[in-house]
Amino acid sequence: MNAITDTFSGAAVSTRANVYFDGKCVSHSLTLPDGTRKSVGVILPATLTFNTGAPEIMEGVAGHCEVLLPGEQVWRRYGPGERFAVPGNASFQIRVDGEPYHYICHFG
Amino acid sequence: MNAITDTFSGAAVSTRANVYFDGKCVSHSLTLPDGTRKSVGVILPATLTFNTGAPEIMEGVAGHCEVLLPGEQVWRRYGPGERFAVPGNASFQIRVDGEPYHYICHFG
Repeated sequence: MNAITDTFSGAAVSTRANVYFDGKCVSHSLTLPDGTRKSVGVILPATLTFNTGAPEIMEGVAGHCEVLLPGEQVWRRYGPGERFAVPGNASFQIRVDGEPYHYICHFG
Repeated sequence: MNAITDTFSGAAVSTRANVYFDGKCVSHSLTLPDGTRKSVGVILPATLTFNTGAPEIMEGVAGHCEVLLPGEQVWRRYGPGERFAVPGNASFQIRVDGEPYHYICHFG
């Protein structure tokens, strides 16, 4: 069983959401006391293609997703407490069925 | 012109989103250093009926909404920096057309 990050403390939170794909993905951006930037978000049932700028680590909070990373042939399933890394300047696919997938995105 | 609250500082942020109405409304809950609870959220184009527990003050961050408060006959339009109050244990309607409505919800 993986530990789940349920709270960030001392964060500066942007009140305006990031809305992607007509709302199939919604996140809010945070800056932690040490200056690191993260976002907390949710993906509703859909299959989406994301493009990264900086490298990202995605960490599940609730629900599940399936991910096709660049150069891979196999979709991999991730759930609460599980992480996957996406390279920078890359494109990857993510699909969610049923329950929303709640995540933390760690940048850089 | 109304001042817009663009950031909350020092907040404890729940990483799991609140997802209402199949994702037409998504928010994240915050607790500020003084213990007050708020949420930051977004409503996508839809007409929704919300039920309150505690009284709420809604504050716009971006986009617009129209609101029909309990006992009122007229829909009122609110935008960035504008607030409206909803009594506790009440039901109210909110509708959003076009661009998402980003908001802060102040409780109690």
